[in-house]
Amino acid sequence: MKSSVPLLDKITHYIVKRKGKQIRPMFVFLSASMIDSVTESTHRGAALIELLHTATLVHDDVVDDAFERRGFFSINALWKNKIAVLVGDYLLSRGLLLAISNKEFEQLSIVSKAVEQMSEGELLQIEKSRGVNLDEKIYFDIIRQKTATLIASCCACGAASAGANEEIVEKMRHIGEQIGIAFQIKDDLFDYGLGGKIGKPTGIDIKEKKSTLPLIYALNNASNGDKKKMLRLVKRDKKSKADIDTVIQFVLKSGGIEYADQKMRSIADEALTGLKTFPESSARESLIELVRYTIEREK
Amino acid sequence: MKSSVPLLDKITHYIVKRKGKQIRPMFVFLSASMIDSVTESTHRGAALIELLHTATLVHDDVVDDAFERRGFFSINALWKNKIAVLVGDYLLSRGLLLAISNKEFEQLSIVSKAVEQMSEGELLQIEKSRGVNLDEKIYFDIIRQKTATLIASCCACGAASAGANEEIVEKMRHIGEQIGIAFQIKDDLFDYGLGGKIGKPTGIDIKEKKSTLPLIYALNNASNGDKKKMLRLVKRDKKSKADIDTVIQFVLKSGGIEYADQKMRSIADEALTGLKTFPESSARESLIELVRYTIEREK
Repeated sequence: MKSSVPLLDKITHYIVKRKGKQIRPMFVFLSASMIDSVTESTHRGAALIELLHTATLVHDDVVDDAFERRGFFSINALWKNKIAVLVGDYLLSRGLLLAISNKEFEQLSIVSKAVEQMSEGELLQIEKSRGVNLDEKIYFDIIRQKTATLIASCCACGAASAGANEEIVEKMRHIGEQIGIAFQIKDDLFDYGLGGKIGKPTGIDIKEKKSTLPLIYALNNASNGDKKKMLRLVKRDKKSKADIDTVIQFVLKSGGIEYADQKMRSIADEALTGLKTFPESSARESLIELVRYTIEREK
Repeated sequence: MKSSVPLLDKITHYIVKRKGKQIRPMFVFLSASMIDSVTESTHRGAALIELLHTATLVHDDVVDDAFERRGFFSINALWKNKIAVLVGDYLLSRGLLLAISNKEFEQLSIVSKAVEQMSEGELLQIEKSRGVNLDEKIYFDIIRQKTATLIASCCACGAASAGANEEIVEKMRHIGEQIGIAFQIKDDLFDYGLGGKIGKPTGIDIKEKKSTLPLIYALNNASNGDKKKMLRLVKRDKKSKADIDTVIQFVLKSGGIEYADQKMRSIADEALTGLKTFPESSARESLIELVRYTIEREK
């Protein structure tokens, strides 16, 4: 990541210092290892995806005006928007160059499709959420494109880097997609407090008029009167704490949490079934553990 | 550019409606035609570069909070920052996918290096302009990376698409770089009113503390007293119209305009000399005309 521009060195150093769980590279390495073994190409795939993911986060913080990320100040908070957008573009192009100069064309193709789908997914969400009253199919389309695509790419790149054929790469992509969908449903459940068991509901999605699976289920199974009332509350621009609590209580009572939790588990189970078609290995066990972590994690 | 997301279709339609001069695709087509002939690959190269250039402009308007572009409202003005950043990312990935799915790896490599250099160049400018008192070498480094890289890529991609060998591709890249440098010096001269001949000085660069060639020359050839005084004015956060006029008059008197104009012409001449080593053709004449337009244009 060395650059001839000192400011850029300083910022990438800061980014590396506050790195996250690096779950995406883990999926790349474990997928390669389960198929055959980790190669130089696997390392490049993991770096490419982590660079891309980091670039996305840097841009996200600009558009959301976020001042914090992983307990540190965001890049835009410390160096302003202009620099943050440029740093994001730089990280993305460094990742692409790494792949291009090493002729990693298969990985490049997988990852570029992911970038396109991710921006389409985000835009679809913005467009659809104006209506608030989503149907389930649209919800799944959005999370498939927005979140699941990148984890799908991790598994596909990992498999490709270990020399898997097209069919196996596609199978791993599909498994990764299921894991990603389960991951996002879990994230959306946090808004209601950890699947309704522990933790305090945050209500952030409701505040921002984002319809997620628990609310969609609740709305689609409510009386016409309740539905109208709740939609009016969710669409309100400035919501009181009481407004948000009313919606949360409505969702809790409707069984929306249990429904979403059950959906998440059945999709994760499909991923596990897919993984179990591969011969037993420690990498396979680790991937199974990662799937379990995805649906059981508490943050 | 068709997308499954209606909002995205609407925005790309709007972008196409307000398209610019499309000078970059022209360089791609003419370079290919001069070397041999325009191929399918030339069209893809031109589309790739125009998509990338458009993505950059959409992002630029976000970071500069600009509300207008080419006489139309900017994307961020009409659809907000979040959507504009995503649309920029989408356009970039569409361009890359177009190249990847057609196995245009040479063009991909040329263009990705350009993206990296452009973001590095912008960041270098932000970093260095804090000091205001640039030296000429840094000025040329910045405009080479920030502006010239993309026109260099146009000429290189055009040549590559016509089947040129590595040496010719590199020669065309170099010619494009010289054209790009001349192009940017011309742009910087507009700040002082069209090379000091016609037009009203805008003084925008001075207001924003950007040191360009005329000012750098003037500062490096001034008495210590004048230099100190002018630097103090340029560094001022809130400048009056009188402050800016004082700096402009100082630059005009110093001969900085003539110096920059002369530099621009000598670099453009090098590009013309390079072009004239190719056999005569109508494409070669058009490229020569484009270089002349670059340095003689009045906006």
